[in-house]
Amino acid sequence: MRDSHFEYFKTIVGDNDCFNDEAHIQAYCYDATRERAYPKYVVFPHNEDEVSKILRYCNDNLISVVPRGAGSGFTGGALPVNGGVVLALEKHMNKILEIDMENMVARVEPGVINAHLQKEVESLGLFYPPDPASEQYSTIGGNVSENAGGMRAAKYGITKDFVMALRAVLPNGDIIRAGKKTIKDVAGYNIAGILIASEGTLGVITEITLKLLAKPKFSQSAMGIFPSIDSAMNAVYKTMASGVTPVAMEFLDNLSIRAVESKFHKGLPVDAGAILITEVDGSLQEDIDYQIKKIEEKFYENGAINFIKAQNSEEAENLWFARKNASQSITIYGSKKLNEDITVPRASLPKLLSKIQEVSDKYGVIIPCFGHTGDGNVHTNVIVNGGDENELKKGHQAIEEIFKITIELGGTLSGEHGIGISKAPFMKLAFNECEMNLFRSIKKAFDPNNILNPGKMAL
Amino acid sequence: MRDSHFEYFKTIVGDNDCFNDEAHIQAYCYDATRERAYPKYVVFPHNEDEVSKILRYCNDNLISVVPRGAGSGFTGGALPVNGGVVLALEKHMNKILEIDMENMVARVEPGVINAHLQKEVESLGLFYPPDPASEQYSTIGGNVSENAGGMRAAKYGITKDFVMALRAVLPNGDIIRAGKKTIKDVAGYNIAGILIASEGTLGVITEITLKLLAKPKFSQSAMGIFPSIDSAMNAVYKTMASGVTPVAMEFLDNLSIRAVESKFHKGLPVDAGAILITEVDGSLQEDIDYQIKKIEEKFYENGAINFIKAQNSEEAENLWFARKNASQSITIYGSKKLNEDITVPRASLPKLLSKIQEVSDKYGVIIPCFGHTGDGNVHTNVIVNGGDENELKKGHQAIEEIFKITIELGGTLSGEHGIGISKAPFMKLAFNECEMNLFRSIKKAFDPNNILNPGKMAL
Ligand SMILES: Cc1cc2nc3c(=O)[nH]c(=O)nc-3n(C[C@H](O)[C@H](O)[C@H](O)COP(=O)(O)OP(=O)(O)OC[C@H]3O[C@@H](n4cnc5c(N)ncnc54)[C@H](O)[C@@H]3O)c2cc1C
Ligand SMILES: Cc1cc2nc3c(=O)[nH]c(=O)nc-3n(C[C@H](O)[C@H](O)[C@H](O)COP(=O)(O)OP(=O)(O)OC[C@H]3O[C@@H](n4cnc5c(N)ncnc54)[C@H](O)[C@@H]3O)c2cc1C
Repeated sequence: MRDSHFEYFKTIVGDNDCFNDEAHIQAYCYDATRERAYPKYVVFPHNEDEVSKILRYCNDNLISVVPRGAGSGFTGGALPVNGGVVLALEKHMNKILEIDMENMVARVEPGVINAHLQKEVESLGLFYPPDPASEQYSTIGGNVSENAGGMRAAKYGITKDFVMALRAVLPNGDIIRAGKKTIKDVAGYNIAGILIASEGTLGVITEITLKLLAKPKFSQSAMGIFPSIDSAMNAVYKTMASGVTPVAMEFLDNLSIRAVESKFHKGLPVDAGAILITEVDGSLQEDIDYQIKKIEEKFYENGAINFIKAQNSEEAENLWFARKNASQSITIYGSKKLNEDITVPRASLPKLLSKIQEVSDKYGVIIPCFGHTGDGNVHTNVIVNGGDENELKKGHQAIEEIFKITIELGGTLSGEHGIGISKAPFMKLAFNECEMNLFRSIKKAFDPNNILNPGKMAL
Repeated sequence: MRDSHFEYFKTIVGDNDCFNDEAHIQAYCYDATRERAYPKYVVFPHNEDEVSKILRYCNDNLISVVPRGAGSGFTGGALPVNGGVVLALEKHMNKILEIDMENMVARVEPGVINAHLQKEVESLGLFYPPDPASEQYSTIGGNVSENAGGMRAAKYGITKDFVMALRAVLPNGDIIRAGKKTIKDVAGYNIAGILIASEGTLGVITEITLKLLAKPKFSQSAMGIFPSIDSAMNAVYKTMASGVTPVAMEFLDNLSIRAVESKFHKGLPVDAGAILITEVDGSLQEDIDYQIKKIEEKFYENGAINFIKAQNSEEAENLWFARKNASQSITIYGSKKLNEDITVPRASLPKLLSKIQEVSDKYGVIIPCFGHTGDGNVHTNVIVNGGDENELKKGHQAIEEIFKITIELGGTLSGEHGIGISKAPFMKLAFNECEMNLFRSIKKAFDPNNILNPGKMAL
């Protein structure tokens, strides 16, 4: 039997960019959650106009559409839970359209990979700070849709702080522009602001204009070693409140340090309660020295037992090794890690970490933690034996308790990974009925037929 | 006859904070546009709960409500064009609720005056950068609702860059929270993002959580004198693109220089095509020296004929005198100035200014310009004899042409003052039908009965 939808999509993107075969369905049914949901069609648009035609058609025919970048999302955002079309943007819509040196702005298609953009602008002496650990494959469109953060957020902020303008296609096919290549623009509602972090539920982003900075000339990394997690967490917020703003201020707890050490034998301080790894940058060597000295002072004031400064880029890489390999190393503790990216106001970090220890004790699960403490973001990893139903259940209870603690401390369910399907059940912990109603009204304003990435964010 | 609405409002806020007398109606019928629109009631709520009750009642009874801060808005945002209630927040809801030194965050009621907050946080060694020229009276609620900018935007950004969280009351009385005391939060739609710059049309903001910085220790001001406006505009964007980021980079054209000089006799360079006044700051004197040197270089490279560095705060104040008194001085040219705050990408400043000269020649009106060139924002002042109908008409034609030029150069109708009623007729120059429809859908999602600040933004 002829599939008229499929035929229509082919007339738009061509036979070679429209599929419903098993290979494509398997290739586009997953993301980094390792959950699966199967699309009916996989379509590779070439440009905004094609995106518009496909959305208009799907809206008229009530076919679900899920925009997809690299599929590296951690919360199921790119999973087509309702079937329908996966609109895969990384294949053709992946061009850097312009790097405007005079205005220090880049204009890109959504499928451009973060690291490609970083490399390109750095070759011109410019700098795009947002650096999610997935930078080698995640796309700018995905970064904008999840409002991705990275190591450098402590100083430079996150994706939203660099988005100047967007182009997007609404579910009904309408093409809109939002924002400008200007630092300020207060004409009309801030549509770009609400599309950021909307997880592909409000519109398909087809072009992104990003602010660039000048590449700082100097940088230096250092590591502080702390006897306890509490002293390290105090050092984080007291350092940041002292007026110095490091590029990064990352931490590993004792479990994470031991995991990396047992896997890589780097001579890490396995008896330390925690380590903090930090980096500063600037346009003057004097400024680097000043910042490092200030951090050293604050670390020692808060009980650090050692402070190691990298003297060159090789030593810097060594200091960063532990942090960059923490995520893969902690798998030594169990077959499944339930990882979350809760975020609290920095001064609540000491309390958060001590409460997580209580949860660990209560449920008898170990919870290695590491992450972006400079912005209050802790990656908590509840480790369970995936095959053991009972343990899995305990793990999930532990997570729910951690979410409750986070909210009580004025924090958020997610600092960077979004809600998707994974955190949807917990939205009611964070938002009241009035707030959820408002989210639903906004979804309806953009997508009255609920065709765009339905079933996400507890809408 | 008994006015039951009035009686109801009194039961909520008390007899002493609810008025319908002539004195109050006159006192709350204007803003900085000097247009007038008369409310039926002036109500002074004490807290969020009262705001909620009033809105719920007005929503049920289809009574218009206009939130109001200091009424310093330049586009008629606070004018009750439909009558109804003016909800005046500056009288009671004006408390600084918390200055959290550990997280470097302030929490305030909407009626707090910008300068009060700045002073308070500076006394603690902290810093709230947004500094609209109206800082002595405009409120933080008004600043958020217009997304106010200021002199320091070139380095520090504008109000939106400091808003971490909001509380607001929706037109139906629902109380919502949006955002957190955290740098990152990607749970749910970015409601705070869309409330910012919404000009009181989506919700009444009842509490604002703001990011603070450490107060920089050192600063220095300097002035560059340029033979032509073109050379000055080139210097602006080339300096900014060279990697140095001054706090401020302001300009006055020849007409503005002459106006200040003729009024105040300060010895300004009246033959200069333009002057640029700049300031840098930082935590090290070496950094100040470095930045000033870099700017000096760039200014001379682009044709500056002189570069004057302030050696102390008195000299700095002298350099800034011209900029701070430009607005009031240019009134020497005519009885009415039609002032706009168009903004273009910085590299388009030379073209913009030369096109404005063409418009001035074409219509035979003079157009002194000054403003925040560091962020591409030019205050254009079309001067006309207010009594002369014909000249007024020419003035308005000139403005329409300037708006068209701005949009063609990739700029925006408004960098900081918003749309309100003043710029509503020009929205169609900047937005297409799809974009206007989206604005209307969003308005409807928040305010289905159109009771909150109706008649604004060309919705
Ligand atoms: C090893 C690893 C490390 C990671 N580290 C980080 C980190 O440090 N910081 C961080 O923030 N995240 C991190 N992530 C999560 C993930 O990489 C980010 O969320 C990233 O932004 C997703 O980009 P993507 O291109 O893979 O998007 P996808 O996974 O393809 O999509 C994510 C969501 O965005 C939507 N979407 C994608 N493109 C568009 C578009 N053009 N228009 C509209 N909607 C769109 C999708 O529908 C989906 O809801 C990590 C993931 C992995 C696997
Ligand atoms: C001499 C002068 C200089 C100025 N300089 C600058 C400048 O440098 N930069 C700049 O950006 N602007 C400037 N302005 C414009 C004006 O001061 C700003 O727009 C300011 O932010 C308005 O604040 P306000 O408290 O006076 O608000 P109002 O004028 O009372 O209201 C402005 C808008 O905000 C809404 N509103 C106010 N409070 C709330 C609330 N709590 N919840 C919801 N909506 C609310 C109102 O309904 C209205 O639409 C200047 C104005 C003057 C008169």
